[in-house]
Amino acid sequence: MKRALSTVAALALLAGSAWAATDDDLRKRANETFKPIPSMVPAVQGNPVTREKADLGRMLFFDPRLSASGILSCNSCHNLAMGGDDNLETSIGHGWQKGPRNSPTVLNSVFNAAQFWDGRAQDLRTQAKGPIQAGVEMAATPEMVLGVLKSIPEYQQRFKTAFPGEADAVTFDNVAKAIEAFEATLITPASRFDQFLEGNVNALNAQEKEGLRLFMDTGCSGCHNGVNLGGQDYFPFGVVERPGSDILPPGDKGRFAVTKTASDEYVFRAVPLRNVALTAPYFHTGKVWDLEQAVAIMGTSQLGKELSRDEVNAITAFLHTLSGEQPRVEMPLLPASTAQTPRPEPLVKNSMEKGAAVERATPVR
Amino acid sequence: MKRALSTVAALALLAGSAWAATDDDLRKRANETFKPIPSMVPAVQGNPVTREKADLGRMLFFDPRLSASGILSCNSCHNLAMGGDDNLETSIGHGWQKGPRNSPTVLNSVFNAAQFWDGRAQDLRTQAKGPIQAGVEMAATPEMVLGVLKSIPEYQQRFKTAFPGEADAVTFDNVAKAIEAFEATLITPASRFDQFLEGNVNALNAQEKEGLRLFMDTGCSGCHNGVNLGGQDYFPFGVVERPGSDILPPGDKGRFAVTKTASDEYVFRAVPLRNVALTAPYFHTGKVWDLEQAVAIMGTSQLGKELSRDEVNAITAFLHTLSGEQPRVEMPLLPASTAQTPRPEPLVKNSMEKGAAVERATPVR
Repeated sequence: MKRALSTVAALALLAGSAWAATDDDLRKRANETFKPIPSMVPAVQGNPVTREKADLGRMLFFDPRLSASGILSCNSCHNLAMGGDDNLETSIGHGWQKGPRNSPTVLNSVFNAAQFWDGRAQDLRTQAKGPIQAGVEMAATPEMVLGVLKSIPEYQQRFKTAFPGEADAVTFDNVAKAIEAFEATLITPASRFDQFLEGNVNALNAQEKEGLRLFMDTGCSGCHNGVNLGGQDYFPFGVVERPGSDILPPGDKGRFAVTKTASDEYVFRAVPLRNVALTAPYFHTGKVWDLEQAVAIMGTSQLGKELSRDEVNAITAFLHTLSGEQPRVEMPLLPASTAQTPRPEPLVKNSMEKGAAVERATPVR
Repeated sequence: MKRALSTVAALALLAGSAWAATDDDLRKRANETFKPIPSMVPAVQGNPVTREKADLGRMLFFDPRLSASGILSCNSCHNLAMGGDDNLETSIGHGWQKGPRNSPTVLNSVFNAAQFWDGRAQDLRTQAKGPIQAGVEMAATPEMVLGVLKSIPEYQQRFKTAFPGEADAVTFDNVAKAIEAFEATLITPASRFDQFLEGNVNALNAQEKEGLRLFMDTGCSGCHNGVNLGGQDYFPFGVVERPGSDILPPGDKGRFAVTKTASDEYVFRAVPLRNVALTAPYFHTGKVWDLEQAVAIMGTSQLGKELSRDEVNAITAFLHTLSGEQPRVEMPLLPASTAQTPRPEPLVKNSMEKGAAVERATPVR
């Protein structure tokens, strides 16, 4: 009996070390392809993140007076209570208009090589100017925004402090820079996958490790790699097989609109997969609500592989380990408007019928 | 020279003590009419405020999945970044519809004798059920809301913890109770007026004290008294002189709709004046953006007095001292939807044209 037990123990030890070797190998391979989210706010090129600037940015991010109606803010579509997006197919904007593309999460967006589904903004400060002005989103103008901010003494003071030495600190560029600085703080470190990358091989269970292995072996990580598992480069949606027109409608040719290059038709930025379990529905049309289904579609359209049920489940389990520690954000206390503050656009009973809103430029996400 | 100085000093001392006597008298009179905001969360009748319940209520308050569209939450119209309301004439709700009355602040609303402009809800938990279901606001149904909450394990668990011992804790009544418990925490103590009431007569300057004196002597405090300087009783708008139909449109007869009593025509709840400097525009129509103008209108319509410029300015200065310490609220982290979670109402391109939204019941604030 004693002998039998020690044989079992020896076998267990062997198995244990075999597993350990495999796990460590997996971890090493993973570290060649992915990077952990840092636990500190990253530096932003050309826009140092100071506390004053990020605090101002938090106010602007939540201030609906940056919209024509006075009810929409950055947080309306990039809701920090819900994984940094709105969990809708496409967003609802000014005049209850439906936006053309699914709202991407703002979380960890500072790590993306470029912003928007077609990557047309090279950084977050360029991105921030888009939705404020888009007729289907906040429908404001730089003049309107600056009119609001300059009419409020506390805002004037905060711009001065956040951008010291500038004669006129309240500019649309600085609005965008402050928002970028705040957004750079919205990172989600310490996901179980990060813990795994950093050395704790027990942070993932067997199925999740199998999912990670499959994610690398089947080719997902060819596009979804780096710190954000995506967000770094552009690829055609439907490399192997184009999905149905509900998921990839012919009217939206993606990056083609930016580069006007035929090879960029239906090309989109590889979606960053951090916190993907929190940001359904999926794809630029937001037509797929189920993460398993999204994984299966990616298998056929991008890799030409019919993934088995078990494979889909394992990859999905792995994707769930990408949910990191969410930023705890205190609601700002916005200073009151003054007699000089431009008032929100008078609400036409049905502004869409009158075409008031749609006359403005309508850039897409 | 020495003698001259000491005479001046003696006179100053005399004047000082005379002022002190007057100030103390003013403070005593004020304490007979008003009460300070307590610094602790008040007890709520029939709904003890526990941390678990208030935390759950904070989640529900911010969760747009309690609306048909998936974009509107309690915080949309009662924005905690902006004095607890939306700073619009009347709110924008489902399908970009315009609400019929100005959104009242949620701050200190726990101290009101009843809720809504016509006082038709006796408490905050009754009030909370209104906007969730109103077709012009969140346009949801209790079934829809419970469908969402029951589909999400974390919500189920949190309801169990917040309402221990209840077999089925996820009920619409408990949704309302949790929201009420959170809202009871949204109090704003330590305004300068509270400091004055509590003994620091230097918390108000001379003009503000004059404003307080006028507020009591001209009769404002006849309706605006108690802890919230209002919110306790109902009065006709236009006791002496009815304001113009832009400010008091004939279509909204106020409390008459609740009591069906002729004497309640154009009767509204005396507005609570706490934080009034943060909650422009004013009156149930929200047609007046300027606090001075609102004070002057009240003088003529309610008191039959043409207040002088100086009197209006002094009363307004006093009203500014009613802004208290705003609650610091952390954005909740809402649990993700599941495959079972009902999806937001499919967005009809123009839902108002189709009449989808307006078919629902449309109660007013």
